[in-house]
This record gives sequence, structure tokens and C-alpha cells, in this order.
Amino acid sequence: MYVVILAGGSGTRFWPLSRKKSPKQLMSIIGGRSMLQRTIERVIPLAPRRILIVTNQAQAGVTEEQIRLYRSAVPVEVIAEPVGRNTAPAIALAARIITSHDPTGVMVVLPADHFIRNEEGFRSVIAEACHHAANGWLVTIGITPTRPETGYGYIEADRSSRSLPPFPVRRFVEKPPLEKAMEYIQSDSFSWNSGMFVWRGSTILDALERHAPDIAAPFAPLDAGDGVWDLSDLEPRVAAIYGSVRSESIDYAVMEKAENVCVIPADIGWSDVGSWSALPEILPADHQGIVAIGTRGVVSIGAADSVVHAPGKVAALVGVRDLIVVDTPDALLVARIDQAQEVRKVVERLEQSGDGDLL
Amino acid sequence: MYVVILAGGSGTRFWPLSRKKSPKQLMSIIGGRSMLQRTIERVIPLAPRRILIVTNQAQAGVTEEQIRLYRSAVPVEVIAEPVGRNTAPAIALAARIITSHDPTGVMVVLPADHFIRNEEGFRSVIAEACHHAANGWLVTIGITPTRPETGYGYIEADRSSRSLPPFPVRRFVEKPPLEKAMEYIQSDSFSWNSGMFVWRGSTILDALERHAPDIAAPFAPLDAGDGVWDLSDLEPRVAAIYGSVRSESIDYAVMEKAENVCVIPADIGWSDVGSWSALPEILPADHQGIVAIGTRGVVSIGAADSVVHAPGKVAALVGVRDLIVVDTPDALLVARIDQAQEVRKVVERLEQSGDGDLL
Repeated sequence: MYVVILAGGSGTRFWPLSRKKSPKQLMSIIGGRSMLQRTIERVIPLAPRRILIVTNQAQAGVTEEQIRLYRSAVPVEVIAEPVGRNTAPAIALAARIITSHDPTGVMVVLPADHFIRNEEGFRSVIAEACHHAANGWLVTIGITPTRPETGYGYIEADRSSRSLPPFPVRRFVEKPPLEKAMEYIQSDSFSWNSGMFVWRGSTILDALERHAPDIAAPFAPLDAGDGVWDLSDLEPRVAAIYGSVRSESIDYAVMEKAENVCVIPADIGWSDVGSWSALPEILPADHQGIVAIGTRGVVSIGAADSVVHAPGKVAALVGVRDLIVVDTPDALLVARIDQAQEVRKVVERLEQSGDGDLL
Repeated sequence: MYVVILAGGSGTRFWPLSRKKSPKQLMSIIGGRSMLQRTIERVIPLAPRRILIVTNQAQAGVTEEQIRLYRSAVPVEVIAEPVGRNTAPAIALAARIITSHDPTGVMVVLPADHFIRNEEGFRSVIAEACHHAANGWLVTIGITPTRPETGYGYIEADRSSRSLPPFPVRRFVEKPPLEKAMEYIQSDSFSWNSGMFVWRGSTILDALERHAPDIAAPFAPLDAGDGVWDLSDLEPRVAAIYGSVRSESIDYAVMEKAENVCVIPADIGWSDVGSWSALPEILPADHQGIVAIGTRGVVSIGAADSVVHAPGKVAALVGVRDLIVVDTPDALLVARIDQAQEVRKVVERLEQSGDGDLL
């Protein structure tokens, strides 16, 4: 089994802590290790043959530094995409590399920037998924919804033919309106699409050739199977392919079209940590609901339900609630927690105003 | 005419910018100069014979540094109280020093930490007050109230005998309840007690001897009149007096009891800058009501009516309003503007928790 970690995201929603060169997955929001490091540690007990991290060139250096300490436990490779082309080309590339070394290898595709509370549960689900993937399924890990979230994609399972997972997938639904989302969470057929997939490299390459041949074709001649995992040799050829390949998500390119897709619903304490407002779900709070990250201390005078990141400082909160406060050496953010997604507008504004050094 | 500036306050309500060693009057909240410096600059056009600054020992060094540049324009002396004893002993000391050099000298007593928008108006009022002080009045400068403030003292004038100021004072009222304060601002007889006083040194010493003899007596032997203004020689004797003198305000010790008290109402754009919430009154705001102090810039996404102090940083405010945000190298404050006075509780909490280095 091989693990492919998709780690090239830019994470503007965690500005000012996340920056272009240190996006969310490389940040240490939660404890000392980054989300990428936690993703690696989460799969090491599964004893993967190799971990392949797909990132971009701006982040490749920091990524290399962060994975160094795991190299004694598991072989880890980093490959940098020359430009971002969404998940389908990244997965095609990874599948091509894996199959050229191991034609029947199963690959587990994981985003680098998700939080999972129940790590044992996660590993059980992945082990089960690997079993079905070996039988030719394109397995998606579906997350049992906990709220009528309208920002996620949903997977509808066909539970008519089987009483136990994996269930064949009936359809994918992108970001539903609230009424639909409320219906979905009443039903036991709908899961959130977590972006975690398990399949043989050969299965996904076949599916890509069938459903998105223009994406599959340029990767077909890429043979990394010389027995040596030196991916830096590949990079000029990858650059040539990426120059013209279509940008597309694997969901749209393959998953919504293929027949052999199944879903394993998983209730594993998952969060995509999509913005600052997700942190109260996953980090411990004091009895007033204040989550302090890296502060020397918090003095609360009638304050509640807020997130404060202020490394080395005492943060004093007086009478405020439902705030996000993030302090960095060159930028300070104070936002209403229910408007955390608007933080990306701050990033846009700074791009326009020529304050690119803050991004 | 002599100016006495009372500058020993500790200013915890401007934490974390104000600290024990750099309280409000020594801070540069408004532009580059401190409030003490602005107080000095405000009186220099009145050509005082000498300015005497009464401070405490912790602040004496910084005070000396801040006044250095004015020494070419006017003689300035600094005397440090060994302990704080409220305003009556400080005024007794200053009056004693002045009268021993100039027995008929008029002294203008000014707090070091007030803001006055109309400086010309201020100087007119002071000049008028000096005239009446020379005739033996204890003159108070009353501020025309602009709101039913319950945190201030009020002065009631007796307007029956005269149509023009100064008016004899009928009574002093400390911090009235709201209903009373609302009555007062309807009447033209009430002013706020600004803590600005003008009198001969000899007049206030006589009044102290009469109404608070225990405060006046220990200062009586203090003779600084050797022709040389070297106040450092005085300090051991001052220390001996302060060791046992009663702590009392000049209002309670004298003003509320004396007969020869008058008030000159003044509408001069005064603010005591009592807490962070006073800043929107005296500093320019953008069209969303955001006052930025020392920031590199502010990015507002739907934010309004807030004060931000973040030296050298970009401050991003998302969806928030009515906040005070103050960033310093070791402490960060986020407070609701209508709870700005609660900031002193933060200081108390830090004292208790052993974080004295932040005070």
C-alpha cells in the first residue's frame, strides 16, 4: 500500500498565519507538528511501502524539511508540481509513478490539511478500503455529516443491495442548498466527500483513460519504474506535461462518471479545518469557550467563545465574544468567528494594495 | 506666573500601552509627542516664569528625558514624590517651593494627561483665571459638560450675583447618579471639575493651613528660597514629610470647604482621555469610524467604530465593531469599547498572577 498526500494548497483562509510559503498544511496550528506531519504520523502505523507527497515548488523546500524526521520510519518522496492543476493531474501523476514501480499497488489519497480525531477509526476504515480497492473498486471515504453544511460535496450511497459497506455510489452532489443539506443529514445514505480515496493505481489510471482521456494521455509515457525512486529526475518531464494539461478535480473527471465507485461511511471525528472558525471544534477550550493557541496566557474579563493566537504574548479579552484574534509579527487579524471565511477577502485586498509581502 | 504639572499618575486604564514606567502622560498615543509634552507646549505661549513637574520616582527619569527639549524655551524643574499622596500634598509642596522663591507668585495647576482641542481658548481662560487669582481667588476651570457623565465631579456655580465669570462656587458634587447628571447638563450652572486650578501659592497655602492644617504644617518649614532652583537638594526633606503626611485630594482638603472659590466655565474641547474609549473623540477616524494608531494600514471588511493600535503592522478587521485592539510586543488587548474601563481589572489580574513584568 502506498500513500499519496496532496499538499499543494494555498490556504488563504488562515491568513495571517498561513502565507504562500507556509500554507495551512505546513502550519503548526494544533500543537507542535504541522497538519502535513500529523497526516504522515496518522498513516505510519498502516506501514505503507512508501509515502508520496505532491506539493508545489514554492512549498517543496519547507515540505522536505518537515518530512525529514519520518524518513527513518518510512520512505517518503516529494514531487513538486510546476503549476497547480487541481487534483486529477496530481493523482494521475502519482498513480503513474506508483504503477510503474508496482503495477498492482494500492494507493491511498489523502489531503494534507485535514484533522481526524479518531485516528484508530481512520486506520480501520483505510485498511478496509484497501481490501476493496484490491478488488478493483474506486473507494471513497465518506464522512458521516454532523450538520447541514452547504460548503461541502455529498456522496449518496445505494444501500439497497448491501447492508454493510462499502456501498455502491448512486451520485455525487456538489454544495447543496440548505434545504437539501437538511434532508441529507436526516437520511443515512449521504456522506460528506472528504477527498480521501483508495484504489489501485491501475484502476484509477484506467478510469482516467476512459472518462478523462485528455488528462490521462500525457502521463501515459511517464515511466518512473527504473527501480530507483528519484523523482527529481522526473521533474522536467512533469513540467512539460503540466504546461498543457487541463485543470480538473478527480471528482469531476472520474468519480461522478465511473461505475465502479463505492463509499465507506466513516464517523472518525473529521474536520477539514476550512477556516479559523473550525478550530473550536478540534482544539481544547477553557470553560468560557476560549481557545488559546501559543499564548503566554489569556486574561478574560467577561469574554467567551473566541479563538486567540498570540505567540508568547498575554492576550487580554474584555467583554468580547465570538471573535478570532490572530497576531503575527507583521499582521494582526480580528474577525467575527461567523465571518471567518471573509478572511480571504483580506488577502485579496492586500494583493490589490501591493502588500504582497504579507501574503 | 508659574505652571505646576501633576504628572505622577499610573494610568492602568491604558494598559497594555501604558505601563508603570511609561504611564499615559508619557505615552505617545496622539501623534509623536506625549501628553506631558503637549501639556508643556500648550502653556509655553503664556510665558510662565517656570514650569514645575511633580512626578514619582519611577517616572522621573523618563520625564527628564521628555522635557529636555523645552529647557531652551522655559525653565522646567522636575520633583519626584517618594510616594503618591494624592493631589493635596503635591500642591502644598509645589506652592511652598514657588512662594519661597516668589511670595506673590500665581500658580496654574494642570494635570499632565488631559487633551484640549482648543488651545487658544484654553490659554485665554488661564490668562483670565490668573487675573482673578492675583486678587486672592481660588479659581477652578470648569468644563462645559457635553454628556451626563457619571464618572466626573461637578462644580455648581452661583450665577445670581454676577452675569460674567468667574462665578462663586456654590458646591462640589462627586460622581452623581445618572438622573442627577442629566439634570446638571440641562442647567447652565454646572461644570465638570477638570482638576485645573489657578491661585497664588500663598492663597492655597493659607487655605490648606485653615482647612487641612495637618497637611499644610509639615511643608511649612520647607524653604526652597535660596535663589537656586535645585530641587534635588530638597528631596531628602520631602521624603521625610511624605513618610507621614495624609493622602488627600485638594478638592476634599480645600476646595469643598473654602469660601473664596470661583469657577470659570470653559468650552475648550477638553477630554481627560480617561480610557481607550475616549480616543474616538479626539483622534481622526476613517469614514467607517475606525481610528488607527501607528499601524502600517488597516484592512476593514465590514468593520466599523473601532480603535486599533498596532505599530508597524497591517490590522485586518472583519465584521467587528465597537472594539479596542491594542498590540504591544508582550501583550495584546481586545476589548469592547463600552467596557474600556474594565481594562484596569486586567491589570489587577496580572498583578495577582505574578505577571508583574507586563505592568
